[in-house]
Amino acid sequence: MKEYCFGIDVGGTTVKMGLFRVDGELLEKWEIPSRTENEGKAILPDIAEAVQKKLEERGIEKDSVTGIGIGVPGPINAEGIVPHTANLGWGYKEVTRELTELTGLVSKGGNDANVAALGEMWKGAAAGHKSGVMVTLGTGVGGGIIIDGKIITGANGAGGEIGHIHVEDAVDWNCGCGNQGCLEQLASANGMVTLAKWMIRQGADTKGTTLQPETMTAKDIWDAVKADDAFAKDVAERFGKYLGLALANVASTVDPEVFVIGGGVSKAGPVILEYIKKYYLKYTFRGCRGAKFVLATLGNDAGMYGSAKLVLEQ
Amino acid sequence: MKEYCFGIDVGGTTVKMGLFRVDGELLEKWEIPSRTENEGKAILPDIAEAVQKKLEERGIEKDSVTGIGIGVPGPINAEGIVPHTANLGWGYKEVTRELTELTGLVSKGGNDANVAALGEMWKGAAAGHKSGVMVTLGTGVGGGIIIDGKIITGANGAGGEIGHIHVEDAVDWNCGCGNQGCLEQLASANGMVTLAKWMIRQGADTKGTTLQPETMTAKDIWDAVKADDAFAKDVAERFGKYLGLALANVASTVDPEVFVIGGGVSKAGPVILEYIKKYYLKYTFRGCRGAKFVLATLGNDAGMYGSAKLVLEQ
Repeated sequence: MKEYCFGIDVGGTTVKMGLFRVDGELLEKWEIPSRTENEGKAILPDIAEAVQKKLEERGIEKDSVTGIGIGVPGPINAEGIVPHTANLGWGYKEVTRELTELTGLVSKGGNDANVAALGEMWKGAAAGHKSGVMVTLGTGVGGGIIIDGKIITGANGAGGEIGHIHVEDAVDWNCGCGNQGCLEQLASANGMVTLAKWMIRQGADTKGTTLQPETMTAKDIWDAVKADDAFAKDVAERFGKYLGLALANVASTVDPEVFVIGGGVSKAGPVILEYIKKYYLKYTFRGCRGAKFVLATLGNDAGMYGSAKLVLEQ
Repeated sequence: MKEYCFGIDVGGTTVKMGLFRVDGELLEKWEIPSRTENEGKAILPDIAEAVQKKLEERGIEKDSVTGIGIGVPGPINAEGIVPHTANLGWGYKEVTRELTELTGLVSKGGNDANVAALGEMWKGAAAGHKSGVMVTLGTGVGGGIIIDGKIITGANGAGGEIGHIHVEDAVDWNCGCGNQGCLEQLASANGMVTLAKWMIRQGADTKGTTLQPETMTAKDIWDAVKADDAFAKDVAERFGKYLGLALANVASTVDPEVFVIGGGVSKAGPVILEYIKKYYLKYTFRGCRGAKFVLATLGNDAGMYGSAKLVLEQ
């Protein structure tokens, strides 16, 4: 009988490793470094070794392990193949095949934002729901769409790329993706700062603000919002407009039960949901007005949970 | 062994009935009137009678029939329950349960735009693809999302409500849904005419146009585009911008292999795809640039095909 599985979240600097019971209880988590030098050749062998050691340490037989789920920062297709992942050094890589060869265990892979969404749906903020959309407001804006418990991966691995929904015609600088006016340019942690500076250039009223344009962070902006800073609140309105608009458009497409907001920016707390919901309700289709908005609860563990769920489901 | 099924598309004036082989061959199609008076009480009994007669006429045993798929113009949930359908006269109605009681055959129901999408994916313009999005440019703008061969119905039956994606902040009149700036207000058959009149009010250059503002139709606009009418081409650009933007945002959400464009407006032919693709490529995420754009091929039969597929799949 299968009792255990591994949920692994590969990042650019560390690999988060989780040993789970098949019911979703996280028994132990630890980290190993991501050795991205030499085209990231050591990453999968390092993971395999860590898995092997953990099994020996706990006296767990391989027969009782369902497998290894692995989340990677980039596109990965249904066959577990990554075409290219810049921040791990990988070129074309058959991730799950290699991991299975190295460990003798079944392996299943997913994109990091997608597995984080799956994790929050399984054991986090959206547990108990069948369909949900997670938005991760970090350095960029990531997203994951879960329908009937399954990730919408997309024909090109671009399912849930919510950060690249076009929300503003007036943006005249490029997003990392090459387009102009993407949500990520204005609503990520960096994007909020860019947005505030852009509003200043456009002549926004900054009288009395405590924000320092040269050094402010997204956290500073939200702290100022909570301190009733008028300019910061104007920035939050625009942030809310862009996210509310993007999520309303997502709702008209997949109509989820719940939206989960996570990532560094979400640490500002429930206030961010107020600004997002205000504009979501303005723009969304009538039938979708009842969607719930919740803050993510698994933090950096979401990817491990989702990766574990991925391999349990296959 | 099951050899046959029925695919039925209920509209506000007629019910389109199709008898199919289970491999998807349409053996016969015919229509009966939609008797919407008296809260549409007669609609399902009329359908049941028509099914019964067809079986007798052809000497088909019920045992050899998989069931009846039925598409309805409005939301219908996974249990086949319609909360309310204005243009059929129905209030709360357990459509599939009633149809099964009346016929003794399994029944499965779907929204008309969604089953049309499923039909085009199965036997129409997108046959052979796993994922696709259909947009129906008719009186309004309908949509259907198919992922891995399944309809994305949505938590509130609002999956694929692409017509209500917000695309224009400057619109100051209401959509049927109550919002302002929906795609449907500017890109349906009626919406294109509204768009052209709005552009004239905004001071568009109409010099030399053959279009008559008081009487023009979407077909007139596309005919003028083909005749190289400058104003009509400006209208087509704006139409393309709104649709291209909306579909780019859909792509960042579900990343389909193919977009199918159908409905009355699509009869203008491949020229409409040019205008849509131009702006789709401008706004879409890099990974989604390869999506195909095709014109629907099943016309008014798409709903029958999709309804048949629905019951074959359950």
